[in-house]
Amino acid sequence: MPAFKEFTKENVARLDPYVPGFQPDPNDHVLKLNANENAYGPSPRVLEALRSHINGDLRLYPNSKAIDLRLKVAEVYGVKKDQVICANGSDEIISMIFRTFVPDGEVVQFTYPTYTYYKTQADIYDVPYRYLETGDDFLVDMDAYLENPTHLSFVSNPNSPTGTLLSAASIEDCLKKYPGLLVVDEAYIDFGGAKESAIPLIDKYPNLLVLRTFSKSFALCGMRVGYAFGQSHLIAALDKTKDSYNIAHLNQIAAIAALDDYEYMLSSARKIAEDREWFASELAKIGFTLLPSLGNYVFVKHPKMEAETIYQNLLERRILVRFFSQRRVSEYIRISIGTHDEMERVLAAIKELLA
Amino acid sequence: MPAFKEFTKENVARLDPYVPGFQPDPNDHVLKLNANENAYGPSPRVLEALRSHINGDLRLYPNSKAIDLRLKVAEVYGVKKDQVICANGSDEIISMIFRTFVPDGEVVQFTYPTYTYYKTQADIYDVPYRYLETGDDFLVDMDAYLENPTHLSFVSNPNSPTGTLLSAASIEDCLKKYPGLLVVDEAYIDFGGAKESAIPLIDKYPNLLVLRTFSKSFALCGMRVGYAFGQSHLIAALDKTKDSYNIAHLNQIAAIAALDDYEYMLSSARKIAEDREWFASELAKIGFTLLPSLGNYVFVKHPKMEAETIYQNLLERRILVRFFSQRRVSEYIRISIGTHDEMERVLAAIKELLA
Repeated sequence: MPAFKEFTKENVARLDPYVPGFQPDPNDHVLKLNANENAYGPSPRVLEALRSHINGDLRLYPNSKAIDLRLKVAEVYGVKKDQVICANGSDEIISMIFRTFVPDGEVVQFTYPTYTYYKTQADIYDVPYRYLETGDDFLVDMDAYLENPTHLSFVSNPNSPTGTLLSAASIEDCLKKYPGLLVVDEAYIDFGGAKESAIPLIDKYPNLLVLRTFSKSFALCGMRVGYAFGQSHLIAALDKTKDSYNIAHLNQIAAIAALDDYEYMLSSARKIAEDREWFASELAKIGFTLLPSLGNYVFVKHPKMEAETIYQNLLERRILVRFFSQRRVSEYIRISIGTHDEMERVLAAIKELLA
Repeated sequence: MPAFKEFTKENVARLDPYVPGFQPDPNDHVLKLNANENAYGPSPRVLEALRSHINGDLRLYPNSKAIDLRLKVAEVYGVKKDQVICANGSDEIISMIFRTFVPDGEVVQFTYPTYTYYKTQADIYDVPYRYLETGDDFLVDMDAYLENPTHLSFVSNPNSPTGTLLSAASIEDCLKKYPGLLVVDEAYIDFGGAKESAIPLIDKYPNLLVLRTFSKSFALCGMRVGYAFGQSHLIAALDKTKDSYNIAHLNQIAAIAALDDYEYMLSSARKIAEDREWFASELAKIGFTLLPSLGNYVFVKHPKMEAETIYQNLLERRILVRFFSQRRVSEYIRISIGTHDEMERVLAAIKELLA
């Protein structure tokens, strides 16, 4: 037998994979507030639609372009059908963006901190990245994207894990001058930031892609459906690099039904936003420093107790929040907003451990 | 506004995307035999399992590594759990293979003809490919892989669209000398070729990956679950480049339940294999040339009527088979094997149009 080469690409061999939020055993009855899942669950209409499609037709391939879902998205968001693409979570779209739009030698930029999956994907595709460091207030500054413009940039709005929201006007100001492709990831925008969406800008800017997901406001993390808006030339290019049948049949059904009950989404997002405001104000009263969050989570620290200690103490009380070990963000914990009762329980636990 | 660059990568701009089998409107009541879907549908236990998981827990992320499914696959196939990976269809695994294992400057090879998705993915990842041309009999020759060995090779066994089967011994003979990574795609092996599977070879060869899918013998095209076997160093590398939550929750549930009813799969695969043999012999009687197929399809031509004409004539009779326009294969049509009654109908239609 010949001596085998190392098969794995060098950049893959050295990369640190994305670390998903810990997934506890359901039998442990942990209050799971570490992955920004939506406590209210999907619309009953989604469950009904799914039930009515559990049959022998699962033997057939799903629609390869998720046509019915694209038409529904186009109708609900008031765009043309060739301005929409759907995929196996917005994570697949991020992966597609790298393989579609980033030639060798180009660089990608995104803020620090932000959703770490952009960095993971840059590493997977061996694309160099540059962090745009935020200031002490963690606010994203769109002007920073213009200092050394790159072929591709990501901005998460509201940002994860901080929750801070940019105005659509500041995004448009950047787009007017930015020569590369700007991806605005609006995974969390339904929790109070929707009026700042960049979707209305796609007709005007040929270098804008806007990402959305059914995971957060539509409460369908389990079904893995993401979608993106952009001019038809961008969508047509992405269509060439997606996996051929990338969205399973039931996943398409669930997403269509979720859009059919848009009111349900708005109502659960509103409840979450209200509880976020209440919970944040309660935390402020007991000395927490908070960033102004428009996501379904808050990003907080306390002068008297380290973030990791709070995380551990809450875990002992069967409350799982998110602690990130990376620089700067390790001073904070991110707490997803559950139901009001759940947040009462978290608040009581926090008061207890600070006492 | 500055002049915008062309954003799309050159190789993506010029690539011909994969062409999925045509998906007729269900209301047209076409007998669909163009995509090797399994007429018998999934096990009733799969449908039961799905029904019992349609609930509010779809708000939660699926298990990011599909652990329960991997454990089940490992148990059923008698391998270690770190020798298995699962993904959003074997198509996602093929995409992962390119981004995990093929550095710049390397070449991939596969036979001509074969599953065209290997070429599509090579084009997406801008990896040059080389066809290993088959002879007039369309038989795959594993020695051809050794003539100019490349970093990565694919072989489909049984081959698509021809159905011809290689022996495990011939694959092992190649592996003994092949210095690159060999991917054996066994999507169709349950329809009569299972004893030639390369899965038992993974312990011995560090350069072997074997692909399987739940789409064909398990009749779950709609659920998009593929899986792969290989030594742990290959699986660990693939784990780094998969999408983080790549398999939706219900898709994991369906695949586990399908493996729980392995007997059902064996029984439906056996019926299909029997009808393939009967249908092939009937076609031979009326003058068709056939390749010896071990898939759930036959690849046939007739001396008196062009393949495209047969395709069109059958379509007029609401029978949809597969016609490929590429060189050599355009002389043939590929007909998926449905139920016995369906194949009686196809046979009658063919006899009628040849008369």
